[in-house]
Amino acid sequence: MLKVPEHQVAGHIAKEGKLGPLVDDRGRFYKPLQGDARGENEAKFYESFSSNKNVPDHIRGYFPVYHGVQLAEASDGSGKLPHMVLEDVVSGYVKPSVMDVKIGSRTWYPDVSEEYFNKCIKKDSATTTISLGFRVSGLKIFDCQESRFWRPEKRVVLAYKVDGARMALRKFVSSNPSADSVPDCAYASEVYGGSNGILAKLLELKAWFETQTLYHFNSCSILMVYENESGGDDERRAQVKLVDFAHVLDGNGVIDHNFFGGLCSFIKFIQDILESSDNRCENGH
Amino acid sequence: MLKVPEHQVAGHIAKEGKLGPLVDDRGRFYKPLQGDARGENEAKFYESFSSNKNVPDHIRGYFPVYHGVQLAEASDGSGKLPHMVLEDVVSGYVKPSVMDVKIGSRTWYPDVSEEYFNKCIKKDSATTTISLGFRVSGLKIFDCQESRFWRPEKRVVLAYKVDGARMALRKFVSSNPSADSVPDCAYASEVYGGSNGILAKLLELKAWFETQTLYHFNSCSILMVYENESGGDDERRAQVKLVDFAHVLDGNGVIDHNFFGGLCSFIKFIQDILESSDNRCENGH
Repeated sequence: MLKVPEHQVAGHIAKEGKLGPLVDDRGRFYKPLQGDARGENEAKFYESFSSNKNVPDHIRGYFPVYHGVQLAEASDGSGKLPHMVLEDVVSGYVKPSVMDVKIGSRTWYPDVSEEYFNKCIKKDSATTTISLGFRVSGLKIFDCQESRFWRPEKRVVLAYKVDGARMALRKFVSSNPSADSVPDCAYASEVYGGSNGILAKLLELKAWFETQTLYHFNSCSILMVYENESGGDDERRAQVKLVDFAHVLDGNGVIDHNFFGGLCSFIKFIQDILESSDNRCENGH
Repeated sequence: MLKVPEHQVAGHIAKEGKLGPLVDDRGRFYKPLQGDARGENEAKFYESFSSNKNVPDHIRGYFPVYHGVQLAEASDGSGKLPHMVLEDVVSGYVKPSVMDVKIGSRTWYPDVSEEYFNKCIKKDSATTTISLGFRVSGLKIFDCQESRFWRPEKRVVLAYKVDGARMALRKFVSSNPSADSVPDCAYASEVYGGSNGILAKLLELKAWFETQTLYHFNSCSILMVYENESGGDDERRAQVKLVDFAHVLDGNGVIDHNFFGGLCSFIKFIQDILESSDNRCENGH
């Protein structure tokens, strides 16, 4: 009844008997509590966040709905294990383009072990985390011209430098992502732009992060999704969700300057693509 | 003719025959080009910035005026050395309260030597740089009740944690900074608040940093100054200036997310003080 998610682009993958998240056919995402403290921390965050009256309603929509922890058959065959039951963000999409962007100019935080610090700083330096304040950690884009999904290898994605990250964000809204030619940004104005577009949602999040001192979202990602199956109305159903809360800490009265700075850098990249592609997109899809 | 600055609160001090900045009696600040690359880098920045047509005029006011490099008698008696000639920010103030706040959640940046990285990360962790996105690096406050200047030792200032930094920002606008009693924040509304106050200036800077991709201001400080000598009009002449540009890099199309995040965290601290001290201040000075 539970199966491996079709559109997961980052994190542990439940394949070849490995432990990873599963989905059901009713739009729920089952994320196993990892052995170490991380699973517990993430479940604690969801418990705290769901009951936190200081979180505005319009902000809750940017987080997956939390349905508590349940025992479920683990993907690695190790029997029943506790899973966080979350909203499956891509449920109901036929041909979703999905991108996972880890926000922040560092993924470590005060009081982590030296081993974890060294692991993070190494990866933060090898990716665009330090230089851009964010890094693309996974993507899967539907190529409308080839009418198939395009998905670069993880090692390729994690090797992106500034230009690679910019290119990925252009491909994400292009009808020719897998082509070697210049990405046409055909869907930029529909997906990034507009009152329901991704930029508008990111700006709403930004306004909250400017003053919120409840949580520090260390090593947390923004998941972007939109639909490529053109139905009756050409509604793209562009979505922005925050995911991965294993390293969230209390804000203790201080804003999350690490997430906020990275978010604003990311927003600038989206704005630049919208501006540079305005003309092309009017002729686009 | 050149003398040791009276109100310098951070950086190298030209005392006991050490090399440091000097001032003249015409409002100019002479900063020696340090032996290593830093002096050259800072002079290069001032040259670039002064001639950069993409910097809005209202933003230039937040930087010391640059008058070029001149040979001047060095404070360490080593004869004539090249000095950057800058606007002396505190010139014309009789009893200035001054605070230097280093902005950013890191003082290192990509491609620095491992030695410099280790030195920075150690100091960033020991201070509030990582936790708050800024650290107080020096202050000198005029105590109106004792009618003398109060200046904590450097080692005390650099040992501030979150509460110490918040306390220093409260003392900065109090008539009783050196007392053990609670800082009265008597001048908060005059100095931090108002259309000419420090918060208004910080918000103007913030708006620029939200989109500027010209420079990355690594390890750069915000200098805050105001007057305590009450003349005819009680004009506080509150000032905000960016200083110390030895580690500025080109932005290359990316916003300075490290400075921006720290600036917004700092702004939140100022806003909190204004809100919490509103009542007291109305009865204040």
